[in-house]
Amino acid sequence: MLRNDGGQRAEFTARYFVESPDPLQKVAETIAGEQSSGTFLELPGETAELKQRARARVTRIEPQAPALEPGLHSALVERRGHHGVFHRGEIEIAFPVDNVGANLPTLLATVAGNLYELGELTGVRLLDLDLPEAYAKRFPGPRFAVAGTRAKAGVHGRPLIGTIIKPSIGLSAEQTAALVDTLLAGGIDFLKDDELTADPVHAPFDQRLSAVMPVLHRHADRLGRMPMYAINISGTVDEMLRRHDDVLRAGGTCVMASINWVGFAGLQHLREHCELPIHGHRNGWGALSRHPGLGMSFPAYQKLWRLAGVDQLHVGGLRSKFSEPDAAVVEAARACLAPFAGSAPVMPVFSSGQWAGHAPALYAALGSIDLMHLAGGGIVSHPAGVAAGVASMREAWEAATAGLPLADYAAQRPALRAALEKFGSMV
Amino acid sequence: MLRNDGGQRAEFTARYFVESPDPLQKVAETIAGEQSSGTFLELPGETAELKQRARARVTRIEPQAPALEPGLHSALVERRGHHGVFHRGEIEIAFPVDNVGANLPTLLATVAGNLYELGELTGVRLLDLDLPEAYAKRFPGPRFAVAGTRAKAGVHGRPLIGTIIKPSIGLSAEQTAALVDTLLAGGIDFLKDDELTADPVHAPFDQRLSAVMPVLHRHADRLGRMPMYAINISGTVDEMLRRHDDVLRAGGTCVMASINWVGFAGLQHLREHCELPIHGHRNGWGALSRHPGLGMSFPAYQKLWRLAGVDQLHVGGLRSKFSEPDAAVVEAARACLAPFAGSAPVMPVFSSGQWAGHAPALYAALGSIDLMHLAGGGIVSHPAGVAAGVASMREAWEAATAGLPLADYAAQRPALRAALEKFGSMV
Repeated sequence: MLRNDGGQRAEFTARYFVESPDPLQKVAETIAGEQSSGTFLELPGETAELKQRARARVTRIEPQAPALEPGLHSALVERRGHHGVFHRGEIEIAFPVDNVGANLPTLLATVAGNLYELGELTGVRLLDLDLPEAYAKRFPGPRFAVAGTRAKAGVHGRPLIGTIIKPSIGLSAEQTAALVDTLLAGGIDFLKDDELTADPVHAPFDQRLSAVMPVLHRHADRLGRMPMYAINISGTVDEMLRRHDDVLRAGGTCVMASINWVGFAGLQHLREHCELPIHGHRNGWGALSRHPGLGMSFPAYQKLWRLAGVDQLHVGGLRSKFSEPDAAVVEAARACLAPFAGSAPVMPVFSSGQWAGHAPALYAALGSIDLMHLAGGGIVSHPAGVAAGVASMREAWEAATAGLPLADYAAQRPALRAALEKFGSMV
Repeated sequence: MLRNDGGQRAEFTARYFVESPDPLQKVAETIAGEQSSGTFLELPGETAELKQRARARVTRIEPQAPALEPGLHSALVERRGHHGVFHRGEIEIAFPVDNVGANLPTLLATVAGNLYELGELTGVRLLDLDLPEAYAKRFPGPRFAVAGTRAKAGVHGRPLIGTIIKPSIGLSAEQTAALVDTLLAGGIDFLKDDELTADPVHAPFDQRLSAVMPVLHRHADRLGRMPMYAINISGTVDEMLRRHDDVLRAGGTCVMASINWVGFAGLQHLREHCELPIHGHRNGWGALSRHPGLGMSFPAYQKLWRLAGVDQLHVGGLRSKFSEPDAAVVEAARACLAPFAGSAPVMPVFSSGQWAGHAPALYAALGSIDLMHLAGGGIVSHPAGVAAGVASMREAWEAATAGLPLADYAAQRPALRAALEKFGSMV
């Protein structure tokens, strides 16, 4: 453990897992150098001052057990030859705020840029980062977050129960509207497009919006609140702004974007224009995260997207069809709900393989109802239909928050009971 | 090998490496389903028509030797248990163009989205993709590419010899201008900012532009052509457009962006507004590419960014400080120079650890001089100074293109000879 003094310089920090044939101290200094003042030319008289203002500092080193084999291949390591162990551990680096300013692409270039390619590293993963509150406030941050999402949806005191329009892609605008009608008749709080459906020829965005909004309004009149539909506006910057305006004008209450591919500049631009909560779809996340010694962990990822301004963010699902273990899903949701540099918590969105039976485990893990619980089959394949599927989800959350076993609570509740009977083997 | 008939449906294809406990045919169908029509609700009478228009097709399966251990962890595989081998191979999937349209974020969501997280997969990497020319033409594509870059730089018949402003970050605007002056006096064709330097407090963008442009104009007057300076405009969408306009108005000839973090929507927006070549910096590329069974290979990556409109793209360097083997660097540069769906070749940018000695290997590998060859130490640490460093690079390319051994060509050329003496151990 090593701590330096940053003096009066405002700094943000990034924490990494690293692995290298070089000792941790050396490789940490390599990263700190590469990601700040880097290679030096001789500039007589200037070097000390330049280092003082621009050079990143290694602020912590926590060794782990070394490895006998490298986690990732490196041509540099192979060329040099290496016959010892590969050192592993966590390091923390403090960067001067003034190097970057309120510039998201450059913040990413600093904490998640060329360092991934450094030949000295056979493992490098951004685990987390921290920003001084005064610095974080210079980024947009979520405009709606949990509280604004709840206000727009008119749902309080329980999770938002939702589902995804399926088939993923292929429904016409009219088929989409008919499905939306069926789902809302069943009591769904929240609907979203699939990430693959943005502006397909078989269901162009404009037609989809025109077809679904009357259905939403009809149910809003019945409910006294507008069900939330995260309509996928992903596209060019101009398209996203225009589609947002159309959704807003039509009375919609949410927009969705494929954040990794829209990118930080595009998402921030949307956020600055946007008068609706932004549903952040993280498709492509696996490419950044699936190798434990590479890429990024979700606690860092969600902070970066909170700075950009997402209000709702996908976190996977317990025992889902996806590769992440439940512990990672829970960690992701906790991160969304945790304070971060003065920014409001954002709504974690659980989906994939979800049903009523997951409510107790989620509540036990999070101690919160501030989440979206999206079920596909768990709602639409309920033996008594969509309404019973939704009821089973709500009842499960009632039981979970009251600390009652699902089976007991289900005794007098046929919807939950039928869900337990049909899906019970999936817990 | 398996080929289906796509009939009249226009399709684009994506080729993947995959690994799975499931047989290749099964896992390929899983991916094709997940990334198109996906989960089906019962929609009587509609299913066949919907599949016909929206369902992706598996068009090729090429098995490789199976693995005994999984390349990536999957909670789903662990939960199910698996005692056999892990099947490996390449697959190709054909997607209907009409599912996506001219929508880059959704194209990415389709070929590089949730599939990375599928629990059935213990390896998944996008290797390449192909688009029908008529489809590719609906995206912006590079406006300048190789030919437009050469025209703006006024350099023909040889590679552009360049360097990077170093220290990476920390120089004041005035220090930057002084360094630019020194480098241009030495005959540099091309300069770029470090990706870490966009709008730092110690050298704000506006001050940097104001300081360097008079220097560039002074050398332009001397040379009869404007040296190209890729000034880093990365930031918000509005900042990038404004900075581009400022560069253009000041007579600059290139802008640079951190493409992964600006993102596809932001970069496309810049491209549509942009009247200068876009220098695409790929920092963060390692996170997407370093594990061979995950993420993306460069042939796919560069096509996606060519669609968005980059004109120049980083490809690493031979025997560099980075982790990629030389073969990957050469493959990347070849991909940039190869035709793609009617779009012009883009300029590959070589940097890191480069010097004159790399010219013959690069020319042998590429058979082209359409590239930027960026050297740091290889130019500024030349024993006879910057001008001799630049001369050594040009002389090395003269020798390479003439098919003459460097040592022979250096006999009457002191700059090249001194480079070989100083850096010769680095080849």
